[in-house]
Amino acid sequence: MPGELADDSIIIKDPTEASQIYNKGYYGYTLSGGGLELELLEALYLVEASRLEVVSNGKTVPLRKLMTLAASDRRDFEIKYIVYRDLRQRGYIVKTAGDDFDFRVFPRGGSPTTTPTKNWVAAISERALFEMSSFMSDLDRAERTRKELLLAVVDEEGDLTYYSADRTAPKGQLSDGAEGAPVETHLLEDRVLVFDEAGAERLFRNGFYGKQLGKILQLSLIEAAYLLERGRIAVSTLATSRNVPLPRFIKRALKFQPDFELRLSAYRDLRSRGLVVKTGFKYGTHFRVYEDDPDKIHARFLVHCIPEEHTTSWPEMSRAVRLAHGVKKEILFAWVRPQGTEYLRLARVRP
Amino acid sequence: MPGELADDSIIIKDPTEASQIYNKGYYGYTLSGGGLELELLEALYLVEASRLEVVSNGKTVPLRKLMTLAASDRRDFEIKYIVYRDLRQRGYIVKTAGDDFDFRVFPRGGSPTTTPTKNWVAAISERALFEMSSFMSDLDRAERTRKELLLAVVDEEGDLTYYSADRTAPKGQLSDGAEGAPVETHLLEDRVLVFDEAGAERLFRNGFYGKQLGKILQLSLIEAAYLLERGRIAVSTLATSRNVPLPRFIKRALKFQPDFELRLSAYRDLRSRGLVVKTGFKYGTHFRVYEDDPDKIHARFLVHCIPEEHTTSWPEMSRAVRLAHGVKKEILFAWVRPQGTEYLRLARVRP
Repeated sequence: MPGELADDSIIIKDPTEASQIYNKGYYGYTLSGGGLELELLEALYLVEASRLEVVSNGKTVPLRKLMTLAASDRRDFEIKYIVYRDLRQRGYIVKTAGDDFDFRVFPRGGSPTTTPTKNWVAAISERALFEMSSFMSDLDRAERTRKELLLAVVDEEGDLTYYSADRTAPKGQLSDGAEGAPVETHLLEDRVLVFDEAGAERLFRNGFYGKQLGKILQLSLIEAAYLLERGRIAVSTLATSRNVPLPRFIKRALKFQPDFELRLSAYRDLRSRGLVVKTGFKYGTHFRVYEDDPDKIHARFLVHCIPEEHTTSWPEMSRAVRLAHGVKKEILFAWVRPQGTEYLRLARVRP
Repeated sequence: MPGELADDSIIIKDPTEASQIYNKGYYGYTLSGGGLELELLEALYLVEASRLEVVSNGKTVPLRKLMTLAASDRRDFEIKYIVYRDLRQRGYIVKTAGDDFDFRVFPRGGSPTTTPTKNWVAAISERALFEMSSFMSDLDRAERTRKELLLAVVDEEGDLTYYSADRTAPKGQLSDGAEGAPVETHLLEDRVLVFDEAGAERLFRNGFYGKQLGKILQLSLIEAAYLLERGRIAVSTLATSRNVPLPRFIKRALKFQPDFELRLSAYRDLRSRGLVVKTGFKYGTHFRVYEDDPDKIHARFLVHCIPEEHTTSWPEMSRAVRLAHGVKKEILFAWVRPQGTEYLRLARVRP
């Protein structure tokens, strides 16, 4: 099946041949008069599959030449092509999207003439930066059109990992109120100790705060700051019994943890959603989050806090998703902004 | 059982009472005359377990006061105590070590009088820095005494994660030699394409280089640099067919990957050990490493490259170990130094 190279596309003039290509996979765009115009991407794929021959001035254009043309025509062509090719090989009908995303994909069995688009696809190099705010506006744009956003990340060897992305609003079962007078607690380095056994029991029963160290309850800095904010504890130093009001407490905490305020904002928001929040240290994330009593259920979420302006790398994102997947938890990225905390969920999917 | 507070230790004078404490758990150091001297750490543990009462001037010293004394006597006391207490509760006999490590632990059923030390224990706060070169000298010091090093990392909530650490020398089955003339390849952005099908087949068969993209073999930048070094490929740009010698190739690669030379050093070392090395992108590490044909077996190792001077955080290390554990692989840290690449293996253990 021959197609003629014309600048940045390939034209099949013969109407019978054109409709044969179009009907089996919806490649190209039909021209008035019955011809078909293929993008370089499509043509390359069809040449590779031996379904098309591209000619120019009567001579066959070899694969390498076609690749060179396509690469000079479109930025990151090789990334786009790897994704296009993979989705096609999985049996999907894939068309180039408009300006916002790379491709649109139709549901299995569907077609551009009978079914609406199912997914927007973004073809991304693992070397691309992940910029939170622009990512979230892409996501919102996809959600406004009621289509799922599929991220196809291409690694340095050309292997693909697909991710689904959506916004989510986690919710737990805990109703966690104050009870009685503030409990006396004592700051020792980077932890807060509760020697008052009745007070400790109240803090633990009412919100699952702290961890027992024999007869002593230990609170983490973040738990203590949150409880201090709410007037549920009073803090003094262990060594000198000097009272530590909230601003001084936070100043001390910042010495141990430069991102303490970021974490505290997310912690507060998660707690306000009835969730129980514990450290995610074992998983290398900020928090592990339970929907109820942590002694009775497994943590459902791992939560990683991200400041308003945040840029990271795809390997970093990939690591977080993979880790959560490996321990059967969902990874949420808590985007902490002045107007509130928003949650992005990323998950590995097989399209 | 009463003990008298004396500066930074507790003295039990009565020989009968002293030997009762000593014989059940080997606490303290026997004094000439039959008495026993306990460290604050030991005393605190025994008080908590209601096996000891500490008195000073005839009055009981409460738990809180004892804790305050201990904390002012020893840096990071709370970290050390959490670890001491946990190991004791697991039934181990634990004694304070010399200057190099925090504790020594005897094998189950053993005792300081009958058995040599099994483990050196380092009690570490998750907030402590991980400094590669000092870590490796600690490790070597432990290995010179033929004892295992056990790392006990305490998170912000006082939870413990134990790691074993050792040096290792990974080895694979691959013998991977050159074959024939250099294969012609073409650089396109951050990958290298092989259109020559016979050449591609040779590269793949002899070392499992590259990944097939239809009729084209794609090499990653690192594979291409390695093969170019060995004269197994020649590289020219796809667009202009201009020859790209090794120094220019590496310069280009550095633009995409600032740590390219670090990775290439580790890659070279792993290849020289008969291993097949592929990207670890999916796992958020540098490499996944196979002992033989990657199509037939699973990767055994994940490898993370670390430069000569490297400082990171424990949450970072924890994440890498956890991730590898979740996908049933071993994590190796490849420490790339001018004199060669050394491998540190960390694994989560339950003591």
